[in-house]
Amino acid sequence: MEFSSKLLEKAVQEMAQLPGIGKRTALRLVLHLLKQPKEQTAFLSQALTEMREDVKSCQNCHNISDAEVCEICSNAKRDHEIICVVEDIRDVMAIENTRQFRGIYHVLGGKISPIDGIGPSQLTIGSLVEKVKSGKINELIFALSSTMEGDTTNFYIYRQIKDYPVITSTIARGIAVGDELEYADEVTLGRSILQRIPFENSFKNN
Amino acid sequence: MEFSSKLLEKAVQEMAQLPGIGKRTALRLVLHLLKQPKEQTAFLSQALTEMREDVKSCQNCHNISDAEVCEICSNAKRDHEIICVVEDIRDVMAIENTRQFRGIYHVLGGKISPIDGIGPSQLTIGSLVEKVKSGKINELIFALSSTMEGDTTNFYIYRQIKDYPVITSTIARGIAVGDELEYADEVTLGRSILQRIPFENSFKNN
Repeated sequence: MEFSSKLLEKAVQEMAQLPGIGKRTALRLVLHLLKQPKEQTAFLSQALTEMREDVKSCQNCHNISDAEVCEICSNAKRDHEIICVVEDIRDVMAIENTRQFRGIYHVLGGKISPIDGIGPSQLTIGSLVEKVKSGKINELIFALSSTMEGDTTNFYIYRQIKDYPVITSTIARGIAVGDELEYADEVTLGRSILQRIPFENSFKNN
Repeated sequence: MEFSSKLLEKAVQEMAQLPGIGKRTALRLVLHLLKQPKEQTAFLSQALTEMREDVKSCQNCHNISDAEVCEICSNAKRDHEIICVVEDIRDVMAIENTRQFRGIYHVLGGKISPIDGIGPSQLTIGSLVEKVKSGKINELIFALSSTMEGDTTNFYIYRQIKDYPVITSTIARGIAVGDELEYADEVTLGRSILQRIPFENSFKNN
């Protein structure tokens, strides 16, 4: 691409560093900003800079937070003895949206994946194991995605805590609510039969 | 979406103002920035701010430029008597990439489109007509997209300049190089037959 402006070129180059944003899309976004009032670009730049500079990782659960300890961990009404283990802060947001979980979280920051060069030491597994060893945790719910990497990570953690008095569970796998059985993959359908639950439990909340 | 951080929420909201970027994509992009070194976010913010603050519109052709007059208009080797009329700076970039045009440009900034509330006064038609009236222009090449809005804009300009001694032309429409005839739409194929050119001209450059 031939740019008539170095300033434009640099903005497009930086924008195109973002995942899934190619040069053409970056150009479209930057030209859009040029057509908008200057404030919009100023607000965007400021919001990104402030976020990157000031956002913190919760000391306790590693969730993203504005304070040293996140709102969930500092909420006395939540059950601090139940920890839901997730990969990413997006999983925290997804589970919070359901309003079905009153415990706290532990964000691993990824899954063990040798192919991507991610080993256990790059994740927050150490501090999770310490929490369990402290004896204050009653239940650990594994809520990782059910991929090979997710299962590997679950087992790696499980091996380190299985001798401590903690209940371990994993979120239910099955046919999604509203889905047609005939289109479900056989592994999921198979699991949903093997792991069937008493009918009376299926229309109870909590 | 429930955010655990106001800073994160604000960054996502600003990012989601960009066209084609929804809240989920914005969150993905912002979380990506959080995983990268702080410099990347700083560079992106700075590039966007500087671009928006300092980029200029060329006094002559309205192309985006770092100086008052753009590189193309200030280039003495280019033919200043031939003006290619385009909608957008992306069209300038596309034509420059072909390296087939040695004249200069005039960027309209859009097309006449009553549905989108864009009338002639919002475009740079006035200054284009002035250039033609000055008598220094030899040829005007219309290179707008061949839509109803593009044709309307062409005719609007043409009506104002047709009594002045200027050659007007429009870029060739036809089957794209490498395309199969059988898949071409009939309007394009019809035009490419009506507007056929001498065979010897088809393998000449310029």
